[in-house]
Parts: sequence; C-alpha cells; structure tokens
Amino acid sequence: MLNITIIGSGNVAQHLISAFLKTKEINILQVFARNKNNISQQIDSNKIITDYKDLQTADLFIIAVSDNAINIVSSQIPFDNQLVVHTSGGMAIDVLDDKHRKGVFYPLQSFTKNKAVDFKTIPICLETQNDLDYYLLEKIAQILTNKTYNINSLQRKSLHVSAVFVNNFVNHLYQIGNEICQESQVDFEILKPLILETAHKIMAINPKNAQTGPATRNDTQVIEQHLDFLKTENQKNIYKILTQSIQQNG
Amino acid sequence: MLNITIIGSGNVAQHLISAFLKTKEINILQVFARNKNNISQQIDSNKIITDYKDLQTADLFIIAVSDNAINIVSSQIPFDNQLVVHTSGGMAIDVLDDKHRKGVFYPLQSFTKNKAVDFKTIPICLETQNDLDYYLLEKIAQILTNKTYNINSLQRKSLHVSAVFVNNFVNHLYQIGNEICQESQVDFEILKPLILETAHKIMAINPKNAQTGPATRNDTQVIEQHLDFLKTENQKNIYKILTQSIQQNG
Repeated sequence: MLNITIIGSGNVAQHLISAFLKTKEINILQVFARNKNNISQQIDSNKIITDYKDLQTADLFIIAVSDNAINIVSSQIPFDNQLVVHTSGGMAIDVLDDKHRKGVFYPLQSFTKNKAVDFKTIPICLETQNDLDYYLLEKIAQILTNKTYNINSLQRKSLHVSAVFVNNFVNHLYQIGNEICQESQVDFEILKPLILETAHKIMAINPKNAQTGPATRNDTQVIEQHLDFLKTENQKNIYKILTQSIQQNG
Repeated sequence: MLNITIIGSGNVAQHLISAFLKTKEINILQVFARNKNNISQQIDSNKIITDYKDLQTADLFIIAVSDNAINIVSSQIPFDNQLVVHTSGGMAIDVLDDKHRKGVFYPLQSFTKNKAVDFKTIPICLETQNDLDYYLLEKIAQILTNKTYNINSLQRKSLHVSAVFVNNFVNHLYQIGNEICQESQVDFEILKPLILETAHKIMAINPKNAQTGPATRNDTQVIEQHLDFLKTENQKNIYKILTQSIQQNG
C-alpha cells in the first residue's frame, strides 16, 4: 500500500482524490485543504488537515494548486527529501523547493467540476530528477491510466501551449459556430455530428491531410461570400486570419 | 420504388450513390458522370451516362457538382417540371434553372474520399418550393438518416459558414497543435484524448459554459509565457486574436 498526500482541494485535486479512492493499491493518507468544504463529501474529515504542521511523511506528495502557489506550498512541507510533485502543465519541475526530490505528475485533460472522468483514457505526463523516483511515479500513474509518458519540462510546456489551441481555442470556435447559428435561428444540434467527425477523423489521419474547405481549395468566391455574411468584425477577423493561415501553411 | 438520378461523380456523389445502393426503397436510375472511371466500380456501366440527351425522367434528380456548375448543369436537364435538387450548403435554392421544381438536399458532413460514412448519423437539410415536393424529399432523406431538417437558404448559409469554423478552422488548430508538438519532439497522440473530450463535452454543455483556459481566467502571466514560447508570427497572431475574442465574448 502506497501512502499519498494531496495538497489542494480544487478541480484537479478533487478528480485525483476520487480516482485514487477507487484503487486498492493507494491509500490517501492526508489531504491539505484551505477550504475543507470542497472535499468534505469525498473523504473522511479526520484525513483533512488545514495546517502544514499536521502533515505526516508519505510516499508521495501531490501538489495540485494554482501555478503561482506551487513554490510557496512546496516550501511549507515540513520535511526534507520527500518525493513532491506538482500537476501543472505550464510550470517547470524546478519551481518546487530544493529540499525535495522533485517531480511532475501532469494529467493532460480538461477537468470539469462535477463531471466524472475516466482516468484510464487520460495521458499522464511524468518527470522526475532520478530513475528510482520515476519508477515509483510511473507505478502510481499506471494504477490510474494505461497512458504514461516521460515528458521533460520543455516538452510539457509545448503540450500545454498546444492544448490551448486544440482545447480552449477549438471550444471558442464551437462557441462562434453556435452564435452564427443562433443569429439565423438554426439549431446548433445540426452541427454536432460534424464536430464529432472532425475530431474523430484526426485520430487516424494527420490534420494537414484532413484539411478541407474553401481556404484549402482557394475558393475566393466562397470566402468572400462568407466574409460578407459574417456580422461582427471579430468573426470576420478570425475568419481572415485562419483562412490565410490555412492557405500559407496548409 | 423511387427512381433517383444523380448528376456528378465527385466526393458527395460517390457517398450518395453508395448510401442509396444499400437501400431497398431507392433505385438509382442513372448517374451522369463526366468521368466514368470515378464511379465505374460502384455502379453498372449501363447506368452511367455522359450525354445529357440520354437522361430519362425520374422521381428526383440530385445535382452533386461544384457550386459554380450547378446552374448550368440544371439547365442541361432536357425536361420541364422535374424535381431537381442540389447538395450545396453555400448556394441558394434559386440557383437552379426555373424550369424545374427546385429543392436542396444538403447532407451536413465533411466527406473524405474512400472513407465510408454512416449516413444514419448525418443531418440532411432540406428545402423545396412546395409541400408535396418536401414530403417526397423528406421521405427519401429519411431512408438514409434519422435526422432531417427543414432549412431555408439563409439558414443553410449560416450553417455553411458555421461549419467552416467548427470543421475547417478547428482542424487547422489541430494542425497547429501538431506542429507545436513536433517542434519539441512530443507525440501528438498525447493530445488526442483531450481533443475527443473537447468535442464530446459540448454535446451536453453549451460551448460558452464549457470554456476553460488562461484567456477565460484572464491569466496574463500564462498568456505572456505562451506567446514567448510560440515560434512563428502566424501562431502568435492566432493565439492573440483568439485570446482576445474569448476575453471579449467568452
């Protein structure tokens, strides 16, 4: 039985807690939570602590707090030479306090509050400073998922930036599509099969080869019609810059 | 048994032919193809014609050719008062020659050559000039799919523009994500579960409510780091304009 302590009570912490609670191999030793209420329904209240002094040593400390707080939180852990990891895609491993054996445990998924996720399908990107810690971290990650990756801090940064494009920005394009439909009182439902097909298509085909549409075909007549049709300057600008980008790099 | 004649031998025509061939209720009477080879493996060669003079009357003519050719092709059909539809999202119903009973049969999906599609999941947007023709067109569409919609030309245009955002532009963002990963020698596979989750999430949640990420959080520190990290002006510009758009409209 491995003893894990989680520091944090936000979205990622909550999803990790519920995932670890389902396993037999992991014991959640303690959870440090500034706000007890966030997790009081998930875990025994005697395991929830609010004072760093009450922390016990553990096989692994997982810091799941906002990026800005990782360094200060890691320095508050009142032990030396513990394996301490953060869960952030955007932060390098060295943000952790030097007194620890440092690591990163980055589940690459967009977690939504109160929406259960199947951790088995979530890639977990791992980084440590030495092999022994890597084996332990990998062992723990593999209890949750089949997909573990050894990813250094620079690579993780590129994943984090890339995720903004394929997740945040893609979702915003869905929003714009929805708005264009609403203006003409068209049910956005009609576009949902296309949205799914677009995502599923690139599971097997390189996105560059999957590209279709007026920009790829250099169909200036359709492009002009679309630009005329769009109502806001913002939509027109996004249409133009992405059309140009497809034509120059597609 | 309903007799349908298809004019065209491109991507959409091929997918329609193979879908209709699987049904018992539809007989493909003839296919007009400038290039016989495109469809010679799909259908008996004696049904393929290359001269408009050889066309017979049918219950429905489906014109599946490029937008620019729809008008001239429809004028070449040597009959009056036939039900003639086109399959284009971008063209109004009135592009068809006035001698016909006009209609539109627009399957809203991105068809890839040689990639089979399940028509049952594809929305088909229908438009006619009178109710009787609508009932016939709807009956035919319902043989292929459970999802038929009565969509006028203006609404279809908004679907067509919206589809560029949620399909073509989204796919281009996948491509950029892939390129960012390649630069750091990171396997794009790692992002695929996130891509699927992003698409599946909005099946149940409005995209505006599903939005996450540094732009939504107004996390200027992360946004600056990402802009520093990006290598090309094109990537930086797209990042900036979509971040602003999320912040102003998210």
